[in-house]
Amino acid sequence: MSRLPSRFSVSAAALLLAALHTSPAQAEEGMWTFDGFPAERMRETYGWAPDQAWLDKVQAAAVRLTGGCSASFVSGDGLILTNQHCVASCLFDNSSDSADYLARGYIADRRDAELKCPGQQAEVVTAITDVTDQVKSVFGTLSGEALTKARDARIAEIESQSCTDAEKTRCQVVTLFGGGQYKLYTYRKYSDVRLAWAPEARASTFGGDPDNFNFPRYALDASFLRAYENGKPVKTPRHLKWNPRAPKEGEVTFVVGNPGSTSRLFTQSQLAFEREVRLPVTVATLSELRGRLIRAMEESPQYEREGLDTLNGIENSLKVQIGRVKALNDPAFTATLARQEADLRAKSAGNTALGDPWTAVDEAVTAYRAIYLPARFTQPSSDLYSYAQTLVLAAQERAKPNTERLPGYTDSALPLVQKRLLDERPVYPWLDELTLAWSLSKAREYLGVDDPDSKLLLGQESPEQLAERLVGGSRLADPAVRKALWEGGLAAVEASDDPMIQYALRLSERQREIRKLTDEGYAGPLALAGGQLADARFAAYGDTVYPDATFTLRISYGQVKGWTERGQQVPYMTTLGGTFERATGNAPFDLAPGFAANEARIDKTAAYDFVTTNDIIGGNSGSPVIDRAGTVIGAAFDGNIHSLGGNYGYDPVLNRTVAVSADAVQEALEKIYPAPALVRELRAR
Amino acid sequence: MSRLPSRFSVSAAALLLAALHTSPAQAEEGMWTFDGFPAERMRETYGWAPDQAWLDKVQAAAVRLTGGCSASFVSGDGLILTNQHCVASCLFDNSSDSADYLARGYIADRRDAELKCPGQQAEVVTAITDVTDQVKSVFGTLSGEALTKARDARIAEIESQSCTDAEKTRCQVVTLFGGGQYKLYTYRKYSDVRLAWAPEARASTFGGDPDNFNFPRYALDASFLRAYENGKPVKTPRHLKWNPRAPKEGEVTFVVGNPGSTSRLFTQSQLAFEREVRLPVTVATLSELRGRLIRAMEESPQYEREGLDTLNGIENSLKVQIGRVKALNDPAFTATLARQEADLRAKSAGNTALGDPWTAVDEAVTAYRAIYLPARFTQPSSDLYSYAQTLVLAAQERAKPNTERLPGYTDSALPLVQKRLLDERPVYPWLDELTLAWSLSKAREYLGVDDPDSKLLLGQESPEQLAERLVGGSRLADPAVRKALWEGGLAAVEASDDPMIQYALRLSERQREIRKLTDEGYAGPLALAGGQLADARFAAYGDTVYPDATFTLRISYGQVKGWTERGQQVPYMTTLGGTFERATGNAPFDLAPGFAANEARIDKTAAYDFVTTNDIIGGNSGSPVIDRAGTVIGAAFDGNIHSLGGNYGYDPVLNRTVAVSADAVQEALEKIYPAPALVRELRAR
Repeated sequence: MSRLPSRFSVSAAALLLAALHTSPAQAEEGMWTFDGFPAERMRETYGWAPDQAWLDKVQAAAVRLTGGCSASFVSGDGLILTNQHCVASCLFDNSSDSADYLARGYIADRRDAELKCPGQQAEVVTAITDVTDQVKSVFGTLSGEALTKARDARIAEIESQSCTDAEKTRCQVVTLFGGGQYKLYTYRKYSDVRLAWAPEARASTFGGDPDNFNFPRYALDASFLRAYENGKPVKTPRHLKWNPRAPKEGEVTFVVGNPGSTSRLFTQSQLAFEREVRLPVTVATLSELRGRLIRAMEESPQYEREGLDTLNGIENSLKVQIGRVKALNDPAFTATLARQEADLRAKSAGNTALGDPWTAVDEAVTAYRAIYLPARFTQPSSDLYSYAQTLVLAAQERAKPNTERLPGYTDSALPLVQKRLLDERPVYPWLDELTLAWSLSKAREYLGVDDPDSKLLLGQESPEQLAERLVGGSRLADPAVRKALWEGGLAAVEASDDPMIQYALRLSERQREIRKLTDEGYAGPLALAGGQLADARFAAYGDTVYPDATFTLRISYGQVKGWTERGQQVPYMTTLGGTFERATGNAPFDLAPGFAANEARIDKTAAYDFVTTNDIIGGNSGSPVIDRAGTVIGAAFDGNIHSLGGNYGYDPVLNRTVAVSADAVQEALEKIYPAPALVRELRAR
Repeated sequence: MSRLPSRFSVSAAALLLAALHTSPAQAEEGMWTFDGFPAERMRETYGWAPDQAWLDKVQAAAVRLTGGCSASFVSGDGLILTNQHCVASCLFDNSSDSADYLARGYIADRRDAELKCPGQQAEVVTAITDVTDQVKSVFGTLSGEALTKARDARIAEIESQSCTDAEKTRCQVVTLFGGGQYKLYTYRKYSDVRLAWAPEARASTFGGDPDNFNFPRYALDASFLRAYENGKPVKTPRHLKWNPRAPKEGEVTFVVGNPGSTSRLFTQSQLAFEREVRLPVTVATLSELRGRLIRAMEESPQYEREGLDTLNGIENSLKVQIGRVKALNDPAFTATLARQEADLRAKSAGNTALGDPWTAVDEAVTAYRAIYLPARFTQPSSDLYSYAQTLVLAAQERAKPNTERLPGYTDSALPLVQKRLLDERPVYPWLDELTLAWSLSKAREYLGVDDPDSKLLLGQESPEQLAERLVGGSRLADPAVRKALWEGGLAAVEASDDPMIQYALRLSERQREIRKLTDEGYAGPLALAGGQLADARFAAYGDTVYPDATFTLRISYGQVKGWTERGQQVPYMTTLGGTFERATGNAPFDLAPGFAANEARIDKTAAYDFVTTNDIIGGNSGSPVIDRAGTVIGAAFDGNIHSLGGNYGYDPVLNRTVAVSADAVQEALEKIYPAPALVRELRAR
């Protein structure tokens, strides 16, 4: 887990959070699926709404990046707009001591200089099919683990039957409304994604962590990727038009992307678990990791460079979690959530067919409390361990029929698993050892010295010794070694003397046991109760509700609009010139060299960043901000500080999306980080 | 703030917490004042209670250590028993790269080899006088800051009139029951305290942070100090008898010491503030500091040695705060607290003279919420900064008449302030810079980049730059420099070009402004409401209540008793032999060299650590555990994990005191860390 998600990109962990459903959406609230866009509701507010052709056009150009971000095609040659922080790992993985692309940025002067991005894949939705009945038909009278197994088997079946071309397509059955709907998403996938342009890190992260989630903001958080196939740029006739102009106050905006995960209608007991257990543990442990890494990065320029991407991820994640703690400690905010639950319960009172899903959730949460710490802490944090765990699990699962495997290892899931495992990426032993020692020491702290799981994790070794031995002795940083083990299957894995593989084998049985307990006591009951709660919601509110985020394609509408903070009006937009006023000369408020060198040429009145009322969350990073005409006027990269409670509920008064304007990106492409070929490409119709 | 309190010693910060009062004590609950011991109640439970002579004898031998611990005289020559962790700073301050007394322990082979402990002072209560009427008589119709000023002036007056011999006595007016009572404590003080014996750090901290607050435990957390006067050991005929025997299950035990601070009957709004604001901020920021320091200490053996005392303090404090978070997130625990408040409100319903103190507290807490973050973060954490701040404040305050000064700088308070300032103690620049940079970066994070206080703290500099400039440029590590500034007074301070002094001057006006706001909106209203709530409590429950802890002498009764943990019985005692079974060979479970070398000689059946039901808290560290006969059978050094909620309420079923037995200490004095002279001295009548 040494790599954590950045800013509004999404983590795998967040995706695991069981999501339930929402009450009727207020104002601009809503992360709508493309097959459920509330056109009438929008028309009532704005006097206009997009028609189906508009929606189809936008959907066809919307890109999901498997690294945890969103994006869009903006030229006919596969050019993709996203954020710089969504490609930071790519820049980082391509860097070396002599070529620090993350710090210096990267401009490919010709297409064959574009940089391959390890682990990255671009995906475009081509179809959405309702498979609710097919999935639910296997439930029968099942419950607990038996239910999750039957459900997962059916999903594996649907996915493998629906995507026969594993090279170019990907099929995913998505659980919406916590089990109220199951939909098959079919994607056209592009597994060769390359980097064409990214600004200096200081330009895109001006203000660093202190300014993260804040506004006014002066960040050039944009970059361009390109999708390739068979070594050539793919043709993407269905792309969005690039429109480098300033946003206008009050104009309608759409954000189209893949919000990762929300918990908008967690029941009260789920919220209590968040507030009482998950968030405090997360903040305390992640804060310590942050401290360890900050200090380590001061030890040498090499460590400073190699640790930066991880630190950014940790700091971003921490700010998110701390914002959630704040939201759940705000009595007014939580009262609203409690009222929404009470309203749904009241409206459902006569509906005896529902059963009592709230009590079922309470009981599931109680069961989960008992296994949460072991579940969390028996997953050590290390890139090398992750490789080993994937190799072990994949080898064990691949030996089974498709429908009997764990969900992450079905035929439809394996190609991306394999790509991520085998793509070449640097592993920094000092960093991997640091995260591993940290996670093991936290495991011992939270589980207790005498806990059997602590003993399983550590044996007689100290966290530091064990981390040193495992990271120092493992050869899994070498993609060829991973490839040989992948291809060798279970026999090769079990015969391996790699200490990290042996460690993953040692933990795997207990991890399966915990998974079984989780399915039986928590996931199984939630799958049933989630379906019942969704039915209650549909009955009470009809189609005025949207599903919690699931890192699948959504559209949000809103407008360009500032807000009032402690009596002061926050402007809706900043200008490039503001950067020079805010700069102190000291990190992270030092000017990017490109800005300093080109100050005289830069149009200081050009739009820079702006805020809108669109409802987004982590995973939406890189989403195009689209105007009424369907053209791209910016890329969303953040929320304001008030958006951090957005995991649980949307506040229309204060919650804002933060985007970088196409205007600023154009100025950068022309004057600061010149890329004349891209300027021409973006201008072409 | 680089030095934080250890284990059950108390921090200055904890003392600042406004303490209200408790409802009727349950079972062994209660930190009783010596003038309010509930003999009758104890007799009802145990069929026996100490008489006045017993209490007087014990009080006369009870010692408060100004470093934040408790202790007792155990010989006629000023020998003091306390914990090793209470003298860790002394060992540390006397150490160097070539003589690491903290790690190796210290045995003075003759009295003149005993080590002076910087900043340490031993104090024995000689009188307790009720001055409630004298203090309250100045309140009149005052409120807010005017009230706190009048109160503080009267207290300064009482203290200076009552202690004319500033060399040997100290007078302190203590606020009990949050303003229900004011009592003058007179102390005989010994400002020359030296270290006679301490075991190896690994012996006293076997199991380190992982075992801290846990039981079964195997820690030799004991040491001996000696009080000196005029260069000679003081005569202490009124000492306790040393009784090196095993504790017996069920026997009555008393713990006599100075619990630092509790918040047992915070109102609901004060508890909400703890849970929602103070604890989350504390845990997140302190966890990061912990991480920074852990990593820094791995950089060299020198840093490992120099950082250890601070790290121990941080980890201990963190465990305490995390335990409090857990307690306040436990619905059963908080329901009890809510019920207690409801009961008091119900019993007070007819009493119109009371006013509405609960609403007054609510309003005060609301006011405090608005100034809490500035108040917290405009106090940078650095030893050198603390010296500078003391020099600045003392110079400014000493220029005023006694009754107009801040409470910490009155005539009665100044001698200890001066001692702490001028005693020679090492300052480690790397460590001071680390804590300062951390605290400044957290200030910017929590206050926000654009906040005026952030700008006041940082100017245009980054936290790291500023910390480097201030620590690197300051000469305040030199006691002679501090002495010259102290003696030079305000003129010398204002003329100083020491960057840390200049920085303290820069911050002082804002700090005074925040203090004024705090007094006006929070401390003033609380002083009034606290008095009213105390009156309500006295009316409802009579003298069955005890005041919240205030780092003044208290006595707790209880018994030697294990407890049941998840269905398993936890024994009441461990033996020395258990250490060898628990040792893994790896830190912090590696055997202390003295244990390893002497394994064959050690009586493995000898009692080691034990648990009792006594009600203690941070500050009680080092307290003698006394049996019915008034002899010392151990020294309290910790609580079990369930004791961490003890700040807010005592759980008679699970809350335990952890003590090291006199039996184990005797074994150590004879066989492991031999000190024959001490053995003789302890045996003498």
